[in-house]
Amino acid sequence: MPHTYGVEWKMIEIRVRTSRRVEARDITEEVRRAAEGKDGCCIHLFSLHTTCGLTINENADPAVMKDMIDALGRLVPQDYPYRHGEGNSDAHVKSSLVGGSLTVPLSAGRLVLGTWQGIYLMEFDGPRERRIALTVVK
Amino acid sequence: MPHTYGVEWKMIEIRVRTSRRVEARDITEEVRRAAEGKDGCCIHLFSLHTTCGLTINENADPAVMKDMIDALGRLVPQDYPYRHGEGNSDAHVKSSLVGGSLTVPLSAGRLVLGTWQGIYLMEFDGPRERRIALTVVK
Amino acid sequence: MPHTYGVEWKMIEIRVRTSRRVEARDITEEVRRAAEGKDGCCIHLFSLHTTCGLTINENADPAVMKDMIDALGRLVPQDYPYRHGEGNSDAHVKSSLVGGSLTVPLSAGRLVLGTWQGIYLMEFDGPRERRIALTVVK
Repeated sequence: MPHTYGVEWKMIEIRVRTSRRVEARDITEEVRRAAEGKDGCCIHLFSLHTTCGLTINENADPAVMKDMIDALGRLVPQDYPYRHGEGNSDAHVKSSLVGGSLTVPLSAGRLVLGTWQGIYLMEFDGPRERRIALTVVK
Repeated sequence: MPHTYGVEWKMIEIRVRTSRRVEARDITEEVRRAAEGKDGCCIHLFSLHTTCGLTINENADPAVMKDMIDALGRLVPQDYPYRHGEGNSDAHVKSSLVGGSLTVPLSAGRLVLGTWQGIYLMEFDGPRERRIALTVVK
Repeated sequence: MPHTYGVEWKMIEIRVRTSRRVEARDITEEVRRAAEGKDGCCIHLFSLHTTCGLTINENADPAVMKDMIDALGRLVPQDYPYRHGEGNSDAHVKSSLVGGSLTVPLSAGRLVLGTWQGIYLMEFDGPRERRIALTVVK
């Protein structure tokens, strides 16, 4: 259920509960429900966290996001002698590689997405509840 | 030739035909032609695909983008036992690493770019025709 | 000291002097000073360079950003037989992996950042003076 901050904020918060340490969670429908009908040229999604990411990729064959998770795990393994003592340095690095925000065009109040595009929260250090700030850009 | 959706969309579509499987295609001039003269604070470019990316990098020495393509190929090789059966999982991963959208400031109707900056469509699974939605942000 | 271009630009420039070849420079306070109090829904930060990046990550334990720098160095080593002759191809690749721009929500004139989030200029080919264009999006 999106929570509205107040009239002056023009911002909506989307909360997502993830269920594994690393997970590609399709949030397209949550974003659609929160964004559609709004009067703007685009929406901006902003993760309020440093160990997850937001990305757009294929939402037809689930194997694509499994390959993505595995590929990121090979690039930045969890098990490595990192300095940071919390055991989640890999999640911080993946968060900066994938990025924590997205801007998606709105057209006549509808998200503009290509045929195969879905919006994903990339959880790299779950399970947790994640908060995403959604801003409608006029 | 950019195609305009209609007045309420404020959106322009740029079409780019790529000519190789992996290619860094400089689209700065296409973007400039579509964006310049518009009344906004920035433009947003959004790829409607999941196997290409958009990035800004040097457009002086072409060797820079060749190094980029090679480095991405070493990080995410095409030839690997991925789950996804279409042989383009590397392209999906590279698309999320590089990102599929860009926001570029506009000032007095002109793109604000640093001296060495060019705008690139990164083709990772071509050759194809690619569509980029350009939104003028007020 | 941010420099204002002029009324029609709605843009502010932040200048940052880095002190090492590779460095994660926390610019949260510079951005806060330049952005806060402005009337907009978000701000856009845009690096005018091709060998540095902008990212958001943890600003509590400095070990996180050291791990980030080391991990990026393992992914894209400086020492490799690149084509580009300036010895900084690694910096160009890292710049496109991390990305050179950020959009951050503004709410009631204040930056919206999660508890652990700081804004970083990622220097990959310093030391240099770096320019960041800050645009207030209405």
